[in-house]
Amino acid sequence: MKRQDLIALIDRKKSFLCIGLDTDISKIPAHLRDKEDPIFEFNKAIIDATQEYAVAYKPNFAFYECYGVKGWQSLTKTIQYLNRFDVFTIADAKRGDIGNTSKQYAKAVFDPRMSGLDFDAITVAPYMGEDSVTPFLEFPDKWVILLTLTSNKGADDFQFLTSKDTDSKFFEEVLIKSLQWGDSTNMMYVVGATRPEMLGEIRRLVPDHFLLVPGVGAQGGDLQKVAHYGMNEDCGILVNSSRGIIYASSGPDFAERAGDEAKKMQQEMKLLLHSIWKF
Amino acid sequence: MKRQDLIALIDRKKSFLCIGLDTDISKIPAHLRDKEDPIFEFNKAIIDATQEYAVAYKPNFAFYECYGVKGWQSLTKTIQYLNRFDVFTIADAKRGDIGNTSKQYAKAVFDPRMSGLDFDAITVAPYMGEDSVTPFLEFPDKWVILLTLTSNKGADDFQFLTSKDTDSKFFEEVLIKSLQWGDSTNMMYVVGATRPEMLGEIRRLVPDHFLLVPGVGAQGGDLQKVAHYGMNEDCGILVNSSRGIIYASSGPDFAERAGDEAKKMQQEMKLLLHSIWKF
Repeated sequence: MKRQDLIALIDRKKSFLCIGLDTDISKIPAHLRDKEDPIFEFNKAIIDATQEYAVAYKPNFAFYECYGVKGWQSLTKTIQYLNRFDVFTIADAKRGDIGNTSKQYAKAVFDPRMSGLDFDAITVAPYMGEDSVTPFLEFPDKWVILLTLTSNKGADDFQFLTSKDTDSKFFEEVLIKSLQWGDSTNMMYVVGATRPEMLGEIRRLVPDHFLLVPGVGAQGGDLQKVAHYGMNEDCGILVNSSRGIIYASSGPDFAERAGDEAKKMQQEMKLLLHSIWKF
Repeated sequence: MKRQDLIALIDRKKSFLCIGLDTDISKIPAHLRDKEDPIFEFNKAIIDATQEYAVAYKPNFAFYECYGVKGWQSLTKTIQYLNRFDVFTIADAKRGDIGNTSKQYAKAVFDPRMSGLDFDAITVAPYMGEDSVTPFLEFPDKWVILLTLTSNKGADDFQFLTSKDTDSKFFEEVLIKSLQWGDSTNMMYVVGATRPEMLGEIRRLVPDHFLLVPGVGAQGGDLQKVAHYGMNEDCGILVNSSRGIIYASSGPDFAERAGDEAKKMQQEMKLLLHSIWKF
């Protein structure tokens, strides 16, 4: 998906909501567990109930890989189902390796003739540097979403180290260096909602890029603050919620309740778009 | 596998060779491509021909994921076949995410009842810090192999940044911090063979840990130098070769030639173990 199409999608749906499909079999409603593919059945129902309110979906690969081949089948069915809708799709896979290996990871998520998967974007870890990231950028209209400042406690271990030479923090070095690898048409950054004050600083370094912001909801992030610090005139943020939406209910009404939660977020987002954005 | 069992295995085989199964369908012999599962057939033949000389195998997940469900099936058959032999197995997957997600990644490679995969170790990226790494350490006798100083050009982008506060390089911070998360019985570090002089510095910080050293062969690393700087009295290194062994020939003799190459490395390693090691 091209940048202008993503912006048009946000405008059309008046939403910048991304729904994380971290589908855990132990948390899905009991009546689905007897189905042949409970994880896909759950995802399908969630997608049907929420697609009106969400611009993006983000299957979290770990939650499929833990079931091996069967999980990979559920993942494949999920992305193929998502691709029937007008949504931006993110492979939340946190990949990254030497160049010839990253190239294979890129084919896994971007080349459906080989792998069956056709995502718009993939999350990538920056530790191994340029040649671990650029192979993903060789696919037209596909996106890298680079880990920058994550929402977890462990982010403090390394991401805030200050470089002696440049006086920048490590996550800032990631931003600065990666600006040479891609641009705002094929790169986004992960910035956790649990550190909204940092969003403003990051905006100064990357005024045009989209930011993927996880951590609203279960992890404690605040949507108003995220929008205040993170939005730019093209909206510029995708805010992810996973558990808060998909596990809104564990009963037979799980999909309906997920739809309600997604709608609630979309309506809050609609107001934010009106007040801050050009639309 | 426990540390003492790994050391005993190295002693028994007089080898510290790890073979990387980066199996690329476009590089495997033509006569295998008509088989139902060419990748597994290739791996099986390579394993049969080399298992006498190698102590470890390292399937590179990207090379399986790029074929989607079918690739995951080949991967599953490969690890199940490897587990018939007396070898240490490494999931070269470069995973790492927030705690509840890393836990799922850990189940994917360490819990065969769920996923069908039963590896001894997994490579993990450190960017997200402690809670992205420790879930892998909760599995007894399983290992984390943490990316530290990688063999690629992009390693220069971030791994050598010097911290203003500690005057340590970023990869040294990874070593120092991670010593609080695990120890030499459940943690190893990836250090590229392309920077053998750094191996000595790393040894001073982690005298007892095993190091996984990729980059010998196709990437240009030198086995003698790696052994000189990297070995400790328990051997302490696993040296990986992928392309140099598995693609030694593209003809019908591919397995035999892979066996020859593995034997050549094992014999060089045997001498190194004699001269440097207590055995």
